[in-house]
Amino acid sequence: MSILSSTPASQDYRPVDKAVMKRLATIFPQDRISNSEVDLFTYAYDATKKQYPPQVVVWPETAEEISALFSIANEYRIPVYPRGAGTGMTGGALALRGGILVSMERMDSIIEIDEKNRLVTVQPGVVLATLKTELQKKGLFYPPDPSSAKTATIGGTLAECAGGLNCVKYGTTKDWVQSIKAVLPTGEVIRAGTKARKNVVGYNLLQLIVGSEGTLAIITEATLRLIPYPPHRSTFVAQFDSVRNSANAVQSMLQSGVTPCALEFIDRISLEAAHSHVEDKTLPVCDALLLVEVDGFDLDEVKRDSHVLSKICADNGANEITLANSEEERQACWDIRRSLSPAMYAKAPYKTNEDICVPSSQFPTLLEKAYEIADRNHVLTLCFGHAGDGNIHVNFMSHKEKDPDVEKAVDELFQAVVALEGSISGEHGIGITKAPYLAYEMNEKERSLLVDIKKVFDPAGILNPDKIVV
Amino acid sequence: MSILSSTPASQDYRPVDKAVMKRLATIFPQDRISNSEVDLFTYAYDATKKQYPPQVVVWPETAEEISALFSIANEYRIPVYPRGAGTGMTGGALALRGGILVSMERMDSIIEIDEKNRLVTVQPGVVLATLKTELQKKGLFYPPDPSSAKTATIGGTLAECAGGLNCVKYGTTKDWVQSIKAVLPTGEVIRAGTKARKNVVGYNLLQLIVGSEGTLAIITEATLRLIPYPPHRSTFVAQFDSVRNSANAVQSMLQSGVTPCALEFIDRISLEAAHSHVEDKTLPVCDALLLVEVDGFDLDEVKRDSHVLSKICADNGANEITLANSEEERQACWDIRRSLSPAMYAKAPYKTNEDICVPSSQFPTLLEKAYEIADRNHVLTLCFGHAGDGNIHVNFMSHKEKDPDVEKAVDELFQAVVALEGSISGEHGIGITKAPYLAYEMNEKERSLLVDIKKVFDPAGILNPDKIVV
Repeated sequence: MSILSSTPASQDYRPVDKAVMKRLATIFPQDRISNSEVDLFTYAYDATKKQYPPQVVVWPETAEEISALFSIANEYRIPVYPRGAGTGMTGGALALRGGILVSMERMDSIIEIDEKNRLVTVQPGVVLATLKTELQKKGLFYPPDPSSAKTATIGGTLAECAGGLNCVKYGTTKDWVQSIKAVLPTGEVIRAGTKARKNVVGYNLLQLIVGSEGTLAIITEATLRLIPYPPHRSTFVAQFDSVRNSANAVQSMLQSGVTPCALEFIDRISLEAAHSHVEDKTLPVCDALLLVEVDGFDLDEVKRDSHVLSKICADNGANEITLANSEEERQACWDIRRSLSPAMYAKAPYKTNEDICVPSSQFPTLLEKAYEIADRNHVLTLCFGHAGDGNIHVNFMSHKEKDPDVEKAVDELFQAVVALEGSISGEHGIGITKAPYLAYEMNEKERSLLVDIKKVFDPAGILNPDKIVV
Repeated sequence: MSILSSTPASQDYRPVDKAVMKRLATIFPQDRISNSEVDLFTYAYDATKKQYPPQVVVWPETAEEISALFSIANEYRIPVYPRGAGTGMTGGALALRGGILVSMERMDSIIEIDEKNRLVTVQPGVVLATLKTELQKKGLFYPPDPSSAKTATIGGTLAECAGGLNCVKYGTTKDWVQSIKAVLPTGEVIRAGTKARKNVVGYNLLQLIVGSEGTLAIITEATLRLIPYPPHRSTFVAQFDSVRNSANAVQSMLQSGVTPCALEFIDRISLEAAHSHVEDKTLPVCDALLLVEVDGFDLDEVKRDSHVLSKICADNGANEITLANSEEERQACWDIRRSLSPAMYAKAPYKTNEDICVPSSQFPTLLEKAYEIADRNHVLTLCFGHAGDGNIHVNFMSHKEKDPDVEKAVDELFQAVVALEGSISGEHGIGITKAPYLAYEMNEKERSLLVDIKKVFDPAGILNPDKIVV
């Protein structure tokens, strides 16, 4: 774990001194503002394992408080960092320059479940899994499902446009946002989108803010779209003795007309890591494993769809196909899938996880390239992820925190991805860790548009600076 | 039809004079540039029936030509108007200030049908129906389906984010765009999005440009997402003797777990207009008619789903339900539905069509309000549209081109829509006809964001000026 300086040399931003603290205390009561060492370090980290302690943490309860905070931040030019649960993978929530960390965790109300319109209105601090549980009680379903769902907040998933396991059928977070209320860094409160399903009024500010990694506005309320909860699911595991065969099976499944709600690939070495990490051996070790799930409203239909897909796997050379026979067996499969990310550390203490995404037909080529790049640079790699989307987590493992071989492998991987008409991030965003590679995917003018749009929203550059474009 | 002056009083823009024509002739050969009276009037109109003749029409064949055109337009400050087929309903393609009209119709190649990734790459001048036909030959389906599909071009549907009949299941154009190539008014060529299904790299420039009504960039290439073509469909007509009952049926269908691919409402007076307009009596006259279609990959499943929905209609008081027994009968239903817009003129020569959208639960309340507003202002109204989306076409008919009663009704309707948490445009955009009402839905800061984003893309204000925000 690296604890870096919280205040890089900069004449531009003013530190949070006593005068600023006094002003902030006019907005936030004593129990919702802190600069204690413990709090500063608690809010210094995210899933990158990098640490940048802020100079003060505040816990707003209203949009108005955030607006007042921005007024002070603009006056003194102090950087402001919004934060959900800190589960981001690219540093979006890190307080790079110290400043004010705005924890959204107290704005955690589910404001309204509108069953008639299948919409839910929430504050950003609601934990995703909590929301899903509450909705399921009413027979409703909000599909986005990143592996961090048990801790990630809605605000964080909106800021990062989180993906997850079921995007192959349901898309990502951006596909489920109906409208937001947000505070701009200039202090104004705006709404983007309405409760109406279709809306072509003005530019799409909604989709501009969603996925902007907390750099354009702080979302204080969101209305999300829901569907009826599909009560039936069928899950199976298909073992292959070649990555190419598993990739062919993925292609055939995608063209069958039956859309699985999850279509995950795991390679041999990832499976071995999982076996070292957890006692459970539900997922067998093989060269390539596909974990496939179908959901729906009619049990017979789900069974038939599952059969169609498992037959495709068999036709493409799967040498064993195992159906989960109970909810427990099914959960065991997904628990192991979700544990893969931490399990990687069984192989080496440092992990660089790149969530690159390619057109699904390029999935086998990408895997070949990833293994080849890792071999050439003498780096251990473990690959798993969302085969149905072409969104693969390529993990480069190392015994060193800063490893030039890993850096070279990452660089070569990104170049390969762009050459395959893919994207350097499918779901984790750019933040700070991928910012140096942005130019691989976006040309100079495209990047300058990002900078200029940022200036429209945040002329003083106080909201989450140094992220995405550097 | 109103033929308005092509050059409103403005010191800002320079007219297209001989010097400019000479420069344009360096880019466009003689057969791809014209200022003949016939061409200027041919390209002066759109579906608003307003006419603004440009001063010159050009037909580019490459992005490079458009880039060179912008260079001249910036140098002389001449307005540039991109145009597809001119089927837009709010004036997006009208050459308000004369200037240069850029017809995209010669860029009409289907560049690549990528069956493996279910993507198609097209130039913007491809006609939507042509694309759909070509795709269907390969068993592929591009869902967006505005009623203008037979003439509308892909570029126009992207610029306007076209909706149509099957949005209740498949969403709108924006949900099917994977990536675009576009020329900025400053001349640079950019790409937004990649061929990878998931992409969270930088701000969402793709969704910012799609639906921006040709005011931010000219799209020169688009990669669209496809699904396998669902070969089976079942269509039925349900007659109700009360609008409220039909609305209840819509609600119940939406909550059933079975998603129809079309769920259309037509009121009595619209049905009467259709009967006067076409000989065909396939759609019977009743107080409220629902036209419902289910599609899918399995015939039994489609039949079962259709039965579930028709039973819901019966349970909600439908007094007659008629299943289309052949493809001919089915097509007849949809032909009449698509002919409703022109059929309205059987009632009066002038029509103001507002495509307002409300949360689906507010659909009956909206209808009540629309009839009440029309009555109060002594205006005849005909309502039909996408009940499943809450997106209703409220048509105010008049015998006068400019009718203060209609204007008052429109104003009251928009206020009612916003009060119901809806949107003043579900699929037609703002253009010029709804620009005066933008403030009903967007606050001052939201509108100023639109203006400032426009300036980022188009600092000289040469691309399609005076649209959306005035």
